[in-house]
Amino acid sequence: MSPEEVVSCIPFRHITDALTPQEATEILRRNKGTKAAREEEMRAVGYPAYTTSAGWLGYSDDKVRLLVREGLAEGWSHFKMKVGRDLSDDIRRAGIIREEIGAERTLMMDANQIWDVDQAIDCMKPLAQFNPWWIEEPTSPDDVLGHAKIAKAVAPIGVATGEACQNRVIFKQLFQAKAISFCQIDSCRLAGVNEVLAVMLMAEKFGVPVCPHAGGVGLCEYVQHLSVFDYIAVSASLDNRITEYVDHLHEHFVYPVTMKDGRYLPPMDPGYSIEMKSESLDYYEFPDGEAWRK
Amino acid sequence: MSPEEVVSCIPFRHITDALTPQEATEILRRNKGTKAAREEEMRAVGYPAYTTSAGWLGYSDDKVRLLVREGLAEGWSHFKMKVGRDLSDDIRRAGIIREEIGAERTLMMDANQIWDVDQAIDCMKPLAQFNPWWIEEPTSPDDVLGHAKIAKAVAPIGVATGEACQNRVIFKQLFQAKAISFCQIDSCRLAGVNEVLAVMLMAEKFGVPVCPHAGGVGLCEYVQHLSVFDYIAVSASLDNRITEYVDHLHEHFVYPVTMKDGRYLPPMDPGYSIEMKSESLDYYEFPDGEAWRK
Repeated sequence: MSPEEVVSCIPFRHITDALTPQEATEILRRNKGTKAAREEEMRAVGYPAYTTSAGWLGYSDDKVRLLVREGLAEGWSHFKMKVGRDLSDDIRRAGIIREEIGAERTLMMDANQIWDVDQAIDCMKPLAQFNPWWIEEPTSPDDVLGHAKIAKAVAPIGVATGEACQNRVIFKQLFQAKAISFCQIDSCRLAGVNEVLAVMLMAEKFGVPVCPHAGGVGLCEYVQHLSVFDYIAVSASLDNRITEYVDHLHEHFVYPVTMKDGRYLPPMDPGYSIEMKSESLDYYEFPDGEAWRK
Repeated sequence: MSPEEVVSCIPFRHITDALTPQEATEILRRNKGTKAAREEEMRAVGYPAYTTSAGWLGYSDDKVRLLVREGLAEGWSHFKMKVGRDLSDDIRRAGIIREEIGAERTLMMDANQIWDVDQAIDCMKPLAQFNPWWIEEPTSPDDVLGHAKIAKAVAPIGVATGEACQNRVIFKQLFQAKAISFCQIDSCRLAGVNEVLAVMLMAEKFGVPVCPHAGGVGLCEYVQHLSVFDYIAVSASLDNRITEYVDHLHEHFVYPVTMKDGRYLPPMDPGYSIEMKSESLDYYEFPDGEAWRK
């Protein structure tokens, strides 16, 4: 599609104070001439990813250490851990992960909305010693001003959010208020590819890297398309960009993601890659599938 | 209920940077001693209301004029009109209404989210000549920063919003950003009385009058309770406070509102006043009710 065709798909209502169709077209035109080289690069080496598999809450310290070591052996360079249930636990677990991954690899933290605004600021003070790259969802995803206050207080740690942001109007404000350093679009929370395009192009205008959320069944299959498109057509940059990867349940998809050295290889089949296998649907159908009858 | 009991019902998660339980308790305690006098006043004269019935889009100029005259005859002092479909129509219709109601009565405008931010500011310039008290929902209800920008640009016209604001976190930010002069809580959009209480008490702390939205079947029955409670227990003021009234379909309710001289008389029956008559439910039940079989 030409820049004009892409822009004609974007819903601009309620965001023209941040991004006009003309500005969106100019962004896409700017990178048009160099698209072929980036497409070739993506086909060869894929899009960078990080793993969330090691740092879930509820794992024992030993299990966290083991999973991080496994992740290192698989070649991962970015590790995300959950925080927010208990601060002293968080400090201890962050210490274990940082010890294992060393100073040169990257640690991210994710609070899944658990904190109030001032509480988030307080809790990040002792966690800053582990040099997290970002703190994700420190408070309510609707709280633009809260995120902005936290971002100012915890810098240089970046604030990331987006998996629970409902629409382009919330993202617009997160950009306008300088509330986030990482934009975590979600392919299913937003109103389809069209609204995702609106957010991606606003992110590019405001200089915020897009790092999609993929922590859910099928989300990796979806968002690989968005990240590869972002690189080839919109941002033309991999700086501070990385896409979530979770190694769960890909076996139920007809066109599962292909990972290579911690990177997503671009999908080569037509479509959005999220068709589920009919055997899986039959097996798990409630209440008559074999999985339920067992 | 005592101030402490009321406060124990309020969900404070994600709003403590704007209102703490201690502050909420203090507000309620401050007005406790004088509650009886306000309750007596409410029983005697009721809570002030305004009518939206005259200014719907799609009415002919003659019909608007006729409905305004009927409203005047019924004793209404505040009239709301819809705007945003066509600016020249809005200007002409606002002229008719202002001509009929005179300079001493109050005109409000409601755009129902139709404008983008800068468009709202542009459209309000020619409409300012009709001296509207507020412009309601000038843009997306999620756009806190947009409302704040519009509020600054259109002052002294106040910005009103709330009927489509999803939760206390959005309202919190509208207060923090000085984005609204009128807080239009909706009894059904928010998560019940508990969350409404959170918003009412934040409104009081930030000095923003609560003027509930009631433009929907049963909403008048609901919100009369909230407004009367706001006056007796929370704000202790009627300044700039007025509750919407729409004269539609009250006949289907077991305990319909009682209006007197353009004011809501407090409901005297227990409950939230929104039980529908079983005859109405039977008559309109789809597809077997008599209304559908006809």
